[in-house]
Amino acid sequence: MTPPSAWSTAETIAVGTELLTPYRSDTNSLFLTAQLNELGVTVRRKSIVGDHADDLGSLLREALSRVDLVVVCGGLGPTEDDLTRETVAALLGWPLREDSEILSRIRSRFAKRGLEMPDNNRSQAQVPVGAVVLDNPWGTAPGLWLEDAGRVVILLPGPPRELQPMFTERVRERLVRRATRYRLYRRVLRIAGRGESHVEELARPIYIRWSRTEPPVITSVLASPGLVELHLSVRATHASAAGEVLDGVTAELVEVLGDHVFSTDGRSLPEVVGALLTQTGYRVGVGESCTGGLVTARLVDVPGSSQYVVNGVVAYSNEIKQTVLGIEPSLLESHGAASEAVASEMAAGARRIGGADIGLGVTGVAGPGGGTDMKPVGMVCFGVSGPGKHWLTKTVRFSGGRAVVRQQATQTALDLLRRVLLGQASDRETVRRT
Amino acid sequence: MTPPSAWSTAETIAVGTELLTPYRSDTNSLFLTAQLNELGVTVRRKSIVGDHADDLGSLLREALSRVDLVVVCGGLGPTEDDLTRETVAALLGWPLREDSEILSRIRSRFAKRGLEMPDNNRSQAQVPVGAVVLDNPWGTAPGLWLEDAGRVVILLPGPPRELQPMFTERVRERLVRRATRYRLYRRVLRIAGRGESHVEELARPIYIRWSRTEPPVITSVLASPGLVELHLSVRATHASAAGEVLDGVTAELVEVLGDHVFSTDGRSLPEVVGALLTQTGYRVGVGESCTGGLVTARLVDVPGSSQYVVNGVVAYSNEIKQTVLGIEPSLLESHGAASEAVASEMAAGARRIGGADIGLGVTGVAGPGGGTDMKPVGMVCFGVSGPGKHWLTKTVRFSGGRAVVRQQATQTALDLLRRVLLGQASDRETVRRT
Repeated sequence: MTPPSAWSTAETIAVGTELLTPYRSDTNSLFLTAQLNELGVTVRRKSIVGDHADDLGSLLREALSRVDLVVVCGGLGPTEDDLTRETVAALLGWPLREDSEILSRIRSRFAKRGLEMPDNNRSQAQVPVGAVVLDNPWGTAPGLWLEDAGRVVILLPGPPRELQPMFTERVRERLVRRATRYRLYRRVLRIAGRGESHVEELARPIYIRWSRTEPPVITSVLASPGLVELHLSVRATHASAAGEVLDGVTAELVEVLGDHVFSTDGRSLPEVVGALLTQTGYRVGVGESCTGGLVTARLVDVPGSSQYVVNGVVAYSNEIKQTVLGIEPSLLESHGAASEAVASEMAAGARRIGGADIGLGVTGVAGPGGGTDMKPVGMVCFGVSGPGKHWLTKTVRFSGGRAVVRQQATQTALDLLRRVLLGQASDRETVRRT
Repeated sequence: MTPPSAWSTAETIAVGTELLTPYRSDTNSLFLTAQLNELGVTVRRKSIVGDHADDLGSLLREALSRVDLVVVCGGLGPTEDDLTRETVAALLGWPLREDSEILSRIRSRFAKRGLEMPDNNRSQAQVPVGAVVLDNPWGTAPGLWLEDAGRVVILLPGPPRELQPMFTERVRERLVRRATRYRLYRRVLRIAGRGESHVEELARPIYIRWSRTEPPVITSVLASPGLVELHLSVRATHASAAGEVLDGVTAELVEVLGDHVFSTDGRSLPEVVGALLTQTGYRVGVGESCTGGLVTARLVDVPGSSQYVVNGVVAYSNEIKQTVLGIEPSLLESHGAASEAVASEMAAGARRIGGADIGLGVTGVAGPGGGTDMKPVGMVCFGVSGPGKHWLTKTVRFSGGRAVVRQQATQTALDLLRRVLLGQASDRETVRRT
């Protein structure tokens, strides 16, 4: 008997012809990668193959020649297309046998819904002799754990709502026993109000240095409109050692990035703003034009937000800016709708109508049309208003299409609110382009 | 000389260690699959591999043993990690040579931004002797077309904003010459107000029958909250023949699915609603509670929507429902905020305040808290109001978490507006669970 070996690399295989169309991508591998990484296992290759026994068979044979751990997702369904079980059994040379216990479990699943089991589903009770059956209360197809001369192949059902609990409840514990003593520990820094290249420039010298320490910290930079994330990870045998390292690099990064870092604990920007509103006891009203409801929608996304979101007004036309938010027609005429003066008054109006403590106003030119030399597409003005005064106004020129401008403007509005709540916003700052 | 062969299958390879983390997925392959399918080429396998010459080399060798066309994305950058060029050249046994034209183009790209070319970038001018250089005005790394004994390997840069124009402007034409006479023609039916299983039940007998005709129609069913899509595709040598087949199956599907099919021409629901508003000359005002601004945000997503969206009010609290939308406190007390009566009055109020022609009201229990036996989490009420009367009210109980409930409610609100605009909505219908 081969002694159990510790794995450091694995491969994932997603099976399904639908994954070779332009419409579906293999998202299971992202979940599996996160889970495997946590156990100190690196994913070396990911493959996606159709419902063809030959293709799957040769792929699996190749994979097992490179690594000792292969996770195969999908192809365990009851139809003729679902060939994973048979293909793996044939490859290992293990005969299939019907498992009466699985069969009765599948039957009773159908019976519970008042249905008789279709004949098709009988194939799901076929088990390669020698395989460990991984019971699946989240669906009909059980998973399988096949171990041969130290190499392990794990078969899991394709639907994420089955695959994910199957992994955490059925597979993880088995892998832990065989994993190295190393685990992967992570931290995510979320940054608003700074572009990717700006963050890179400031963060790079720090994370490069930490990538050369022992244990090294691996950093990935991920950017989406209005948000930059630094994903830090470190392999260590103990949480305390990893925590110390991650605390060290985080402190240095926060030092250079300042209060643009809005979260180091996984919280989103609306969650951070919500916590600050709860903490200060302030309630907010939003008046938005070019963002068309997105600012309010993101604030309201957080459970419990009804405690601090009083109202949102989407004042897309000048008419509504006047009638609902009480903006003077003369102000609209003299400054134009996309102006800091109007953003401020929208904030004041949004605050007033519902009796909120803070008002947030957003107005600008999202495009594609409507831009001028003075007010180009992408120019967005923000205002935050409190009792008796305007706290902050700001103008930013964003680049990108309509949707990207609106996403960036939404993120910036929430970040300004955060900064006001932190009491750190200066009275007036005008920034061009982030 | 080998005569050019026509391809029917291809493989894609994505290169980059960042694609083997939990944070990034290979989205290029979806774009490439759509493009290749259009040329009648099926993708047989997709692989993702890290920045390791050995792994990439063996993967490419395997791929070329199976298919005659391989598209490799990424690994063409200027850093030490970028090994695609060298690896492919080594595999084919073609020597690398510096291409002075490419080098000067890269230099001038930097010069335009007032920068000197870093030494690193020199590697991007290395070309395997015999390869066709695919000029890349969208970035620094040129693409390469390597043809050997009828087999073709195409190297493209990884960033989608470079890869996509590179494919359509540099690669597509070359492939057309070698593609079969077959092209893939598609049509997408978009359906609202019916769940996936309901659509499946009605559509399945039809698309199964069409899958057995000549040429066969391939159907994929894709569902997201509040939306079901039927993707139909057919391989044919002529657009007219394909169009006839697609028209036939579309007509049969629309027959059974009725006006739940809101689009067969690629338009989104807000685009369809926007076109109907423009056509009828009606302008709309929105009052929303549990959807928190999403209904307005989706309407405003469409360029030109300022012509027909007058205003949106997010009336999250009863206070705002009273002060801004003019709901009677007695109505809120007797029916509760999540009721058809309040949804109707919200619609009327949203219509009134901006002088819109149609008002749309949404109120309900998005969860996770706030549900009761009578008004469980997921119950959402809708109202559409016109001059002098309430046109429609409806109550739906959605399942899923907070975000999913809100997405479904948003889609349903837009669909009700569509149905009213089509003049097809009955006066009052109450449906439980879609």
